[in-house]
Amino acid sequence: MVGLPARGKSYLSNKLTRYLKWLEYDVKVFNVGQLRRSKAKERQKKEGVKEDHSASYFSNENKSARELRHQLAEESLNTLIKWLKEGGNVGIHDATNSTRERRAFIEARVAKEPGLRLLFLESFCDDPEVIAANVALKVSSGDPDYAHMSRKDAEADFRRRIQQYERTYEPITEKYLSYMKIINVGAQIDMNHINGYLQSRIVYYLMNLHLKPRSIFFSRHGESQFNVEGKIGGDSTLSPRGKAYADALPGLIKTNVGDAPLTVWTSTLQRTIETAGNLNYPKLAWKSLDELDAGVCDGMTYEEIAISGGESYRDIVVRLEPVIMELERQDNILIISHQVYAYFHNLPQEDLPYIKIPLHTVIKLTPKAYGCDEERYTVPIEAVDTHRPKPKSATTNPGEPKIQSSARQYYDLGAESKSAS
Amino acid sequence: MVGLPARGKSYLSNKLTRYLKWLEYDVKVFNVGQLRRSKAKERQKKEGVKEDHSASYFSNENKSARELRHQLAEESLNTLIKWLKEGGNVGIHDATNSTRERRAFIEARVAKEPGLRLLFLESFCDDPEVIAANVALKVSSGDPDYAHMSRKDAEADFRRRIQQYERTYEPITEKYLSYMKIINVGAQIDMNHINGYLQSRIVYYLMNLHLKPRSIFFSRHGESQFNVEGKIGGDSTLSPRGKAYADALPGLIKTNVGDAPLTVWTSTLQRTIETAGNLNYPKLAWKSLDELDAGVCDGMTYEEIAISGGESYRDIVVRLEPVIMELERQDNILIISHQVYAYFHNLPQEDLPYIKIPLHTVIKLTPKAYGCDEERYTVPIEAVDTHRPKPKSATTNPGEPKIQSSARQYYDLGAESKSAS
Repeated sequence: MVGLPARGKSYLSNKLTRYLKWLEYDVKVFNVGQLRRSKAKERQKKEGVKEDHSASYFSNENKSARELRHQLAEESLNTLIKWLKEGGNVGIHDATNSTRERRAFIEARVAKEPGLRLLFLESFCDDPEVIAANVALKVSSGDPDYAHMSRKDAEADFRRRIQQYERTYEPITEKYLSYMKIINVGAQIDMNHINGYLQSRIVYYLMNLHLKPRSIFFSRHGESQFNVEGKIGGDSTLSPRGKAYADALPGLIKTNVGDAPLTVWTSTLQRTIETAGNLNYPKLAWKSLDELDAGVCDGMTYEEIAISGGESYRDIVVRLEPVIMELERQDNILIISHQVYAYFHNLPQEDLPYIKIPLHTVIKLTPKAYGCDEERYTVPIEAVDTHRPKPKSATTNPGEPKIQSSARQYYDLGAESKSAS
Repeated sequence: MVGLPARGKSYLSNKLTRYLKWLEYDVKVFNVGQLRRSKAKERQKKEGVKEDHSASYFSNENKSARELRHQLAEESLNTLIKWLKEGGNVGIHDATNSTRERRAFIEARVAKEPGLRLLFLESFCDDPEVIAANVALKVSSGDPDYAHMSRKDAEADFRRRIQQYERTYEPITEKYLSYMKIINVGAQIDMNHINGYLQSRIVYYLMNLHLKPRSIFFSRHGESQFNVEGKIGGDSTLSPRGKAYADALPGLIKTNVGDAPLTVWTSTLQRTIETAGNLNYPKLAWKSLDELDAGVCDGMTYEEIAISGGESYRDIVVRLEPVIMELERQDNILIISHQVYAYFHNLPQEDLPYIKIPLHTVIKLTPKAYGCDEERYTVPIEAVDTHRPKPKSATTNPGEPKIQSSARQYYDLGAESKSAS
């Protein structure tokens, strides 16, 4: 990462981590600020002196601190590289890296490691409103640097720290580096030497992010005839109780969103389209949201399916990729499907079949800086319990070829591929 | 489009057209140079005077020609807008549009039309080698402006024309416009105010293009047991004749690519993996290349399938999207599948099942400026004829909901969606 403090570097690191993890990459953020604090704590324990990490610590004139900060950046970079060499896929160096000198240092360090690729992501922002919001978030979110200060003092100190960085800040323009520069939350984007599958996926994802406040509502379909009969799959209609849920849904949504615009997404299956039937909003049915296509087993029980093939959960991740991308670009939205729920909670996609999402319940997610707030509204209409607990033996799904994740590394082709030989 | 002559504007227009058409958008290029020539011909007929369109015509000091050129740009823009209003999806204005004044004019004209969105695509290039190649292509490809000139004179005149444009050229930097700027064939890319699904797909596609020479080989799988039995789908192994084809393949490929690197892509079906079995190159199996998933009908004959559901060809377009994107990024490649063949020939995807691609034949495509050259190598090993002609009644495929293409316009979501209500 590259950028002054309060430019959303950690936010971007976090979003990117969630996305790449969902694509089943092994991703880890290495935050230099956290390392700085933990090192200072260690020294405090040993030497009994609490270090001053107020704004002056970040001054370029503070020679000893400057050297210490460089050491921290180097140490965290080394830890990151070590982690990659032990099998990690994407390490994110979450630090300001705000001078040409520092970036040249990083480039030289990474160049020593065969097979590693380096991409700089800069968040450049001169919009005072965005900066003010990020500053407020920093000092109000219990940041350990400001734990014992008044909010006012904290804000003043953090703004002084930013000024220290501003004095030496050199936005990225180095033509020999691969970089993506996001200017004012995506109003403008510059890219240089973007190479390979993974880099191109990353920039495409970040291009599609927005920061406007919004809510994402999830509901499964109302209870279906097949649910009542204990069968999965198929394309059955709603049961009488399922229809009652579809009747109750518009009131619940209206209470929550008022007159704000909303879009409704369903799958192409009858039970989801019927569930949305009474909602008076623009609607769209995605084939990609159709539930796990059980193949020849369609209409069988879970027990029967375990024996045979059907679509793997990995196939679903691939199938949902365009949905996820479009979802990032939407405002208020209600999704009659639980297929993309795992994405928002940083849960491994392989757990999806075992996540408990009851029928006749609306889940409201509100994206925050470092994740999503969740509320659940249960509609008092009874429904069968469709939840199956995760089998104790099943660490991966039956029928899922083990070869796939190694193939991804082998060929750098991401989620769409597996090795042939 | 924005850019000096010989910067690949028409090439990019062409590639983009092919891609968007394949996604089933209605796309048309409006080339101002063509309009200029056809207008001049009309006047020549009427007035009997052949107009001089040599370099001096393009000089900023040539006031009457300058005015004429502006009129031509305006007329072709109006034609484009009229076509969009009559139902077209994407109109490409293929002209230099190389001044701020011209772009402001276009912006003002488009702003009058509710619902139209404007995206400028600039190709900026100062690499003398790329420019020389484009100049050579222009004067050797039978361009009507240079039809009666020696190659040397044509090249000199075309270079003078470029100089005329260079004197007034203002690369795009207008922050109030949506634009993508491709610098030196993608080494650097700048984007400003990219909004909406379609714009973001377009820039992602153009980001992934490269211009290095390469060959794309297609082969279907060798004859399978099911082919012999007249069944489609399934996952059967090769017949003895299919195995003989797999044995012959390495020699044929070696003759064509020599020692150059090559990658082999297969589907995940046995018959394609077996066909590639003797090829000693890096291999990758894509689930997305699996043939039309006939659903419950798997293993039936075509006649039997016509009655029931199965995956629609539209679903296949969506499924192949990441393959197409990756294919644009590859060098020499052999694909044991015919699923993406239609893409390279600008054929409607709905014709795919009826395109005649015999077994035991290697097709070699060589991308050129305005399309692909094709050669076919038939391996002298007999195989059954798997081709079914297009039924006379079938203008679209049975089971393909008509609603889908209108849904795309309605919601601007592209290939992944169809309307729910």
